[in-house]
Amino acid sequence: MKDLHGGNIYTFQREGRDNILDYSSNINPLGVPQKFIEMAREKFDTLVHYPDPYYIDLRKKIAEWNAVNMDNIIVGNGATEILFLYMRALKPKKVLLLVPCFAEYERALQSVSAKIEYFELKERDYFYPDIKNLKRQIEAHDYDLLVFCNPNNPTGQFIKVEDIKEIINSCEKKNTKIFVDEAFIEFVEDWKEKTVSSLKNKNVFLMRAFTKFFAIPGLRLGYGISFDEEILKKMWEEKEPWTVNTFANLAGIVMLDDKEYMEKTEEWILEEKQFLYKELNEFQYLKPYKTECNFILIKLWNISAASLRDKMVEKNILIRDASNFKSLDDSFVRLAIKDRESNLKMLEALADIMEDRG
Amino acid sequence: MKDLHGGNIYTFQREGRDNILDYSSNINPLGVPQKFIEMAREKFDTLVHYPDPYYIDLRKKIAEWNAVNMDNIIVGNGATEILFLYMRALKPKKVLLLVPCFAEYERALQSVSAKIEYFELKERDYFYPDIKNLKRQIEAHDYDLLVFCNPNNPTGQFIKVEDIKEIINSCEKKNTKIFVDEAFIEFVEDWKEKTVSSLKNKNVFLMRAFTKFFAIPGLRLGYGISFDEEILKKMWEEKEPWTVNTFANLAGIVMLDDKEYMEKTEEWILEEKQFLYKELNEFQYLKPYKTECNFILIKLWNISAASLRDKMVEKNILIRDASNFKSLDDSFVRLAIKDRESNLKMLEALADIMEDRG
Repeated sequence: MKDLHGGNIYTFQREGRDNILDYSSNINPLGVPQKFIEMAREKFDTLVHYPDPYYIDLRKKIAEWNAVNMDNIIVGNGATEILFLYMRALKPKKVLLLVPCFAEYERALQSVSAKIEYFELKERDYFYPDIKNLKRQIEAHDYDLLVFCNPNNPTGQFIKVEDIKEIINSCEKKNTKIFVDEAFIEFVEDWKEKTVSSLKNKNVFLMRAFTKFFAIPGLRLGYGISFDEEILKKMWEEKEPWTVNTFANLAGIVMLDDKEYMEKTEEWILEEKQFLYKELNEFQYLKPYKTECNFILIKLWNISAASLRDKMVEKNILIRDASNFKSLDDSFVRLAIKDRESNLKMLEALADIMEDRG
Repeated sequence: MKDLHGGNIYTFQREGRDNILDYSSNINPLGVPQKFIEMAREKFDTLVHYPDPYYIDLRKKIAEWNAVNMDNIIVGNGATEILFLYMRALKPKKVLLLVPCFAEYERALQSVSAKIEYFELKERDYFYPDIKNLKRQIEAHDYDLLVFCNPNNPTGQFIKVEDIKEIINSCEKKNTKIFVDEAFIEFVEDWKEKTVSSLKNKNVFLMRAFTKFFAIPGLRLGYGISFDEEILKKMWEEKEPWTVNTFANLAGIVMLDDKEYMEKTEEWILEEKQFLYKELNEFQYLKPYKTECNFILIKLWNISAASLRDKMVEKNILIRDASNFKSLDDSFVRLAIKDRESNLKMLEALADIMEDRG
């Protein structure tokens, strides 16, 4: 397994740097929901049992939250398990991938020996897909599957549901399935009106995560939403038992009732997204891209991504060198959006290094 | 996913039967080690980080415990992930499986479309493999892989390392790899002298679990030991990231230092294994098989496994109907070995139902 991701703070911890500020992974700074912690502290005894292999209560809860049926839900060890399971169940031969994107799609596709073609999201379009061109490309080929993330990681762009309807139309003409990663969607304003799950389309599979919004990447919980009985059946057949641990199961159930946490998060992201964008815009030698999400892609002028990363690490801040995202180069970094105090620290470090702030 | 395993207590819990005594899964009755609970209670904040994708500290600790190097260790979401990963990495075409055994081997082998042949462990041999016949069968065929569990689940039999050396010899002649499931080995007396890992043989892959001995099936932690760099490299390449959650990681590190828990467990199993075997032998219409492990296979005379299971459930005790283990029939059940108080309750319920006790 290569180092394709942000969030690996352990190299630093082993060097005794416990307090590194992690801007490389995009986790809700409100932290692990207190309601879950309080409940779980008293539940260690439940670990002596295997988890429910069908995760009935958890799936009911997730279904309710998404206004779908329990049968439409499959849960996994983070969203990653859902991704790999789907690819193993569908076994697509030829796939169109919107890039830049999360690196694991490609690994999952390679694990089933799929041929991958790329549709590039262009800087000049602010990384929003050119829908006409995309439709043309889909209709001119025989793809088994189209894969994209929405909002996009690392660009923070969000494709409107009207545009997705257009894409679906083209896909249906060609019998092309669609896999949409919505791991970050809960950070989008009024996301429940904007998710593709509302279309209840049989050809669209949705991947979701608890990881980011509920700040529990260490616990491992993700899920899939599908209206295609056949693919879900295959996924359950392929699935290794008990991959979602007892605490992740409990967390899923408790957290979806934590309205206070959700509201606080919505308030924070609305405010802080604007604040950070505005502040970053003050810099002369970098350009932040507008984001609908809890991270910001940045283009650098007078420093390389690797060099900026190294200099920020010296200042105890870990950022994501985005140059290994396909179709980006070493002028891109990605920053998480955190709480105001951390954001101010990060901005200060950045200003020091860039020797620049308009 | 079919219901192939013991330990699914959730159907009963949903009926409000929270206190069912679970004799269907073989978990250390000493429960989740207190040292882990104490430490983890204060560590919920660590869940905001992804787990270390390489699990360096955990693998070091496991390696030390097994007197091997960190590079020989791969960790997984329970032993199950290790099993599926190994099969995906090796992609064996033709496999010999010692039966009866844990049902997931077959699922993992089917997931890579392996052709499976069976070597039956015979009741008349007390389910100990006939080594001469086994060697003959290996040498007469071209198996890519031999799979067995040691100690065997569900029979409780343990193959001596001298016999395994014989088996390895035959396998090496035919270039047949060996996969040994040692998920229950820590319950075997003086197991460190009896494990196949001591042979450090490149052709033998070992699967281990924390699940049973440390009573944490809900947490999901297992590992593999191998001396074959190439297969380990393939497994890491195939591996989905972060499948072992942060708490499982912590548990592995803390528990292997908990000498008191290990000693208490060793004392308990030595005593209780003998006690339960002796007591079950008093029954006229059932036969317990000698076990080197923390469960007992039982043959029934005047009642079917399904019927005994149902009657025991009425008495709030869940036992494992063993009839769906390949090569067993509906005259077999499997019982966990628990603490004395539970064992006495279970024996009383059994005596009531069997209307029999010599």
